[in-house]
Amino acid sequence: MKLLEERIRQEGLILSDTVLKVDSFLNHQVDTALALEIGREFGRIFAGRGITKVLTIEASGIQFAMAAGIALGVPFVYAKKKKAVTLSESVYTAPVHSFTRQETYQISVSQKYLGPADHVLIVDDFLATGAALVGLVDIVRASGAKLAGVGCVIEKSFQEGRSLLENKGVEIHSLARIASMAPGEVHFIGNETVYQPS
Amino acid sequence: MKLLEERIRQEGLILSDTVLKVDSFLNHQVDTALALEIGREFGRIFAGRGITKVLTIEASGIQFAMAAGIALGVPFVYAKKKKAVTLSESVYTAPVHSFTRQETYQISVSQKYLGPADHVLIVDDFLATGAALVGLVDIVRASGAKLAGVGCVIEKSFQEGRSLLENKGVEIHSLARIASMAPGEVHFIGNETVYQPS
Repeated sequence: MKLLEERIRQEGLILSDTVLKVDSFLNHQVDTALALEIGREFGRIFAGRGITKVLTIEASGIQFAMAAGIALGVPFVYAKKKKAVTLSESVYTAPVHSFTRQETYQISVSQKYLGPADHVLIVDDFLATGAALVGLVDIVRASGAKLAGVGCVIEKSFQEGRSLLENKGVEIHSLARIASMAPGEVHFIGNETVYQPS
Repeated sequence: MKLLEERIRQEGLILSDTVLKVDSFLNHQVDTALALEIGREFGRIFAGRGITKVLTIEASGIQFAMAAGIALGVPFVYAKKKKAVTLSESVYTAPVHSFTRQETYQISVSQKYLGPADHVLIVDDFLATGAALVGLVDIVRASGAKLAGVGCVIEKSFQEGRSLLENKGVEIHSLARIASMAPGEVHFIGNETVYQPS
């Protein structure tokens, strides 16, 4: 997605070979017009697939799940990182290890909001280690829902997330794929090679 | 907002005199069409006020800040509850006490995204004790930005949040104001009395 790549070049702050800050337009301050355009792009990619629900994880996936839900005309669900005080019913859970924070937390989704009748698109802001996305894929499969695929806004293609998901047979579409980066420069993978499970 | 009150009557789960679950359509699973309509209502209320930015707090305020940002054609910013690993620059912070979780946490907003040139609308899902919203108001004032007011989706009018905010001279608009509730019944305040600071 050219518009997104341009914004990353213009406003992204590359703090090291692995850390990219996009908090001026994607995940702290959010450019709502760009977020809607990102949602429309996911809508185009997954059009006609009978998606019934978008799934993400709090907090920074919410704006993109909302935008994708708007584009596809469906609700979205966000997995919680803490067990809610009022979340008393049965939940699907998965452990997620955060490498940046060096901690493992549980994510959960109420069993009321995912089931065998659903066809799910998972959306998140970043695909890097893939830890959170693998947890969401496991939750979709535990629910009996059908998984259409995963849509990521930015993929750090030099990290292992994509191969972890591909090994689970997951179709992945990332709107900006970073091949490599270093302070002052970022290289995108020009043509997305879409992995289509057979 | 009649549409919202009807959904609360139909789908809200009242677990006690103070606990209302709306996670089937507002803050776990999200009805994107309703969220957009909520945003349009905030847009109508605050139209022509020169709002430059919507401010909320992660996670469950994000969908409504996004919707309000869409309606007003402005970006939104969400305060973080944890210090981000990549959030290295100066931040505005405020302590927030969660009565449900019995813990105090810091919320923060990068100083890059709020300043004297901004005219801010604060949006959140619930106004109850007002703790999080008071923290957001303090952050807006610390930044030198002008505060237009606070827009809440659901207000528990029997709790102290509104009076805490009014005592700080804040204009508040809640789309559904609950006078009282008990398992099986909910009573709304029919006509919103808008507090206009002099």
